[in-house]
Amino acid sequence: MAASPQSATQPPQTDPTLIFEHFRGSYGTELLTVAVAHFNLFGQLATGSKRFDELRQDLQLEPRPANVLVTALLAMQLIRRTPDDRIELTPMAAEHLTPGTTFDVSDYVGLAAMAPGVVEMAERLRTNRPAGVDEEDGAAFIYRDGIKSAMESEALARHFTMALAGRAKNVAPLVAARVPLNGATRILDIGGGTGIYSIAMLQKHPQLSAVVLDRAEVLKVAAEMAEEYGVVDRLELLEGDMFSDPLPTDCQLVLLSNILHDWDVPQCKQLVQRSADVLPHGGRVLIHDVFLDDDLGGPLPIALYSAALFTLTEGRAYSQSEYRSWMHEAGLKTEAMIPTLVHCGIVPGTKS
Amino acid sequence: MAASPQSATQPPQTDPTLIFEHFRGSYGTELLTVAVAHFNLFGQLATGSKRFDELRQDLQLEPRPANVLVTALLAMQLIRRTPDDRIELTPMAAEHLTPGTTFDVSDYVGLAAMAPGVVEMAERLRTNRPAGVDEEDGAAFIYRDGIKSAMESEALARHFTMALAGRAKNVAPLVAARVPLNGATRILDIGGGTGIYSIAMLQKHPQLSAVVLDRAEVLKVAAEMAEEYGVVDRLELLEGDMFSDPLPTDCQLVLLSNILHDWDVPQCKQLVQRSADVLPHGGRVLIHDVFLDDDLGGPLPIALYSAALFTLTEGRAYSQSEYRSWMHEAGLKTEAMIPTLVHCGIVPGTKS
Repeated sequence: MAASPQSATQPPQTDPTLIFEHFRGSYGTELLTVAVAHFNLFGQLATGSKRFDELRQDLQLEPRPANVLVTALLAMQLIRRTPDDRIELTPMAAEHLTPGTTFDVSDYVGLAAMAPGVVEMAERLRTNRPAGVDEEDGAAFIYRDGIKSAMESEALARHFTMALAGRAKNVAPLVAARVPLNGATRILDIGGGTGIYSIAMLQKHPQLSAVVLDRAEVLKVAAEMAEEYGVVDRLELLEGDMFSDPLPTDCQLVLLSNILHDWDVPQCKQLVQRSADVLPHGGRVLIHDVFLDDDLGGPLPIALYSAALFTLTEGRAYSQSEYRSWMHEAGLKTEAMIPTLVHCGIVPGTKS
Repeated sequence: MAASPQSATQPPQTDPTLIFEHFRGSYGTELLTVAVAHFNLFGQLATGSKRFDELRQDLQLEPRPANVLVTALLAMQLIRRTPDDRIELTPMAAEHLTPGTTFDVSDYVGLAAMAPGVVEMAERLRTNRPAGVDEEDGAAFIYRDGIKSAMESEALARHFTMALAGRAKNVAPLVAARVPLNGATRILDIGGGTGIYSIAMLQKHPQLSAVVLDRAEVLKVAAEMAEEYGVVDRLELLEGDMFSDPLPTDCQLVLLSNILHDWDVPQCKQLVQRSADVLPHGGRVLIHDVFLDDDLGGPLPIALYSAALFTLTEGRAYSQSEYRSWMHEAGLKTEAMIPTLVHCGIVPGTKS
């Protein structure tokens, strides 16, 4: 007798969010210490406020790393925005992080300046390149044409895909429970990995079918999952490059679940546009992700997750406002965000 | 004309505590990841609760590292104490950190298993030896006979002493303002470093004199500070080993400010006893330090600071209850804790 299929629609009884928050504390240590001991950021602002672009150029940082660093320091209440959108020190940072002043604790923070994680973070910020991308295995979590990626190796792709699925398995039941299909009969799950989000939706809606688009090595894991969860007959696995290969045109719903945060702004716009393009009128794009505040000033747990995404991928965390602007550019009308779990939520956009 | 002396009695206008909390986030990442990926701690508790000593022996940990790890995981709400003083998983950890269960995120956390800070923390916990003590420069922040110490090198002693003084300069004005002398005319500042706490008290009380006991290389910095703060004529600098050299017997007040947290329990007891022994009846010992809750279950910022102390010294953070028990053993009658700044407070004890 075959084992009965596992359920992907039953949510966890407890919220694991705190575990992820404790797990990411190191990014706070690293960004604070880099700002103090590698970039003299507080010294640079001690003489007066600067516009973001001015500060970024003084620090010789590209927009992506500058965003990650500034967002974290805003969330830590060490810098703040003035009414005319300049960046200044908070009173706390002015008193305690201005080098050479009476109550300055920069040298205390500087004791960690040469810790390996801090040195690595300084390097990532300076080069704007994810960890591993210049090494033998390649970047751990992402694939696009032209970069080295561990996602081309079966063993590594399986390892990373399964590890990330630990979080996704907690969140997928909430996605399935809270997304109304609005008549959709087939969904396209772009970069869907294990396919767990699609699997949850297929279990929830017996008439639905789905296509998961991802790399071949990743889809081997998805195939096992489809078996385990009993949805093989309704889950198509499509090998391809989401940036360059033609996308299926027979779906009414496109899911971009925890995918856009792996990519920089031009790639995000491209993926949102490509998603909108293959939909019929009335079809919907669902962006399922974490969201920074619209002023990119926090909250702190998302700012630290953004730092994690920054160091491991070509992306960062974005605000709802950023996602909505790309959706509007792509001809989508957006609706209110639907929260799921572990900081995540869904922004739906309908093709008019 | 000589510059007018600096003031050590004016407190900062803003509270720098948050800076230190952000700075120590990495210890949360490291202890959580070590527990998950190096010690299988949650797997060991998944089959049932254990007494602290049982868990400690299963993990093959000495009491000090076991205390640091367990305190942090209690503070993170991943384990908890049962009414009969056993340790069990919280529902959150049982659901999300028990290896192999549906909502387990251990493999996600395990992605950081080989990060240098995590590997280093695992090594510190296993060996119960502070960082650097087996290397050329020696341990950074502590000296006792029989261990290698950077405090014997002039350049390193100056660097570490000055860096730590950044925090002490913020706290010293509060110590001076809040400690009543009760008629004391001379204080002994054991392991006083830059002497900043004594300096603040000397500035506050013009009739007071003080002796700072520390290593010769550290006292070179204290001598400059005494000059800068204009208290040279009332501040004696005494080179010595606080564990083995005779202590001055002409003081009515002994200050142990952020010193005991550098040492393990036997050394702490010894220092408290030696402090009490040189006092006249009615004299007082002041323990100025951070305090864990009496059940050693938090708060989280002190649990993470405890991990910092653990990795850098032979100590950890202690509870008021632990300090009070050593003071009582030494014949001191303790009074209510007086808070100062940056998590610190003073527990006074009077010799009866």
